[in-house]
Amino acid sequence: MPYVNIKITKEGATPEQKARLIQGATQLLVEVLGKNPQTTVVVIDEVATDNWGIGGETVTSLRKELEK
Amino acid sequence: MPYVNIKITKEGATPEQKARLIQGATQLLVEVLGKNPQTTVVVIDEVATDNWGIGGETVTSLRKELEK
Amino acid sequence: MPYVNIKITKEGATPEQKARLIQGATQLLVEVLGKNPQTTVVVIDEVATDNWGIGGETVTSLRKELEK
Amino acid sequence: MPYVNIKITKEGATPEQKARLIQGATQLLVEVLGKNPQTTVVVIDEVATDNWGIGGETVTSLRKELEK
Amino acid sequence: MPYVNIKITKEGATPEQKARLIQGATQLLVEVLGKNPQTTVVVIDEVATDNWGIGGETVTSLRKELEK
Amino acid sequence: MPYVNIKITKEGATPEQKARLIQGATQLLVEVLGKNPQTTVVVIDEVATDNWGIGGETVTSLRKELEK
Repeated sequence: MPYVNIKITKEGATPEQKARLIQGATQLLVEVLGKNPQTTVVVIDEVATDNWGIGGETVTSLRKELEK
Repeated sequence: MPYVNIKITKEGATPEQKARLIQGATQLLVEVLGKNPQTTVVVIDEVATDNWGIGGETVTSLRKELEK
Repeated sequence: MPYVNIKITKEGATPEQKARLIQGATQLLVEVLGKNPQTTVVVIDEVATDNWGIGGETVTSLRKELEK
Repeated sequence: MPYVNIKITKEGATPEQKARLIQGATQLLVEVLGKNPQTTVVVIDEVATDNWGIGGETVTSLRKELEK
Repeated sequence: MPYVNIKITKEGATPEQKARLIQGATQLLVEVLGKNPQTTVVVIDEVATDNWGIGGETVTSLRKELEK
Repeated sequence: MPYVNIKITKEGATPEQKARLIQGATQLLVEVLGKNPQTTVVVIDEVATDNWGIGGETVTSLRKELEK
């Protein structure tokens, strides 16, 4: 019955990678806590780099600085 | 003052259906707990089927299996 | 498969009231969108009135003003 | 290490405004609680007006009533 | 920079099990998407069984039925 | 109408500090986006250090290493 929410920046994760995240997170709950995978829900949110900040700056801005 | 977040897969919910979810969830809080509807907030997130997993599989993949 | 999160202030909701919220939210998703109730998850968060703000004030503070 | 999630309706917030929200929220955690800005994460969700309700009505519907 | 939120029912997960969930979820993001573990945040919410519902019933109620 | 959720580790934030977070976050939305403070909701979640991880370790464990 667990619910897992994974938030990442929207930077090209493929359907295959997202399927692996879902499979891996579900497996983790089964292995560590013996949860039932059939009712384990995983939701992935992909967030625009303009909308994600760390250290007080947007990821968009941090990426530009790295490119300089 | 309650806050309700409804997450569903993005599979064609219409504006009318979303309005009914918002109305119904607000009404539920009023009826059960006597909350003030004027400050009850409902937010609906529609999530791509590639980004939603249950039973360790994406909904995209589950839908394809059903079609077989 | 929907996931519903209901946040309310922690002010004495009873187990019966919480059960009604869970039943009502599940029923709403069934009626409006034809979702499967067996995989519909509802999670209620009860938040201390010190930790909830509206209009820039904590609910603790708003309750005290009302009592004056 | 704090995590801040800001949900607003999707009504044209600019990248500059979103950068200011991220900067301001990070600064707030530093000033009030002495948190380390380098590990403070801020995520902004912009929600369609059809998917946001208050007072039992969608924001789309509230905006239309105001225009009348 | 990812953020992972794991919600489980509050039914006795030990600090060791929670540490394994945090380690495993972080490792998953590193392996699948090459994310930096140093800025990967994992938050576990443990929810009272009265406050978690599936199939329209609280987990408290489901547990009692199983014991009959 | 914005909704802000602030998650911090549970390490002794006082009611006064939490009131300042609520006031500051509300003010930020007013200043940057011209939002109405009366319908701006701020919810603070305080999370046990066993339940918060960064860099693959719990904050409980990180705090112990710092004390060594």
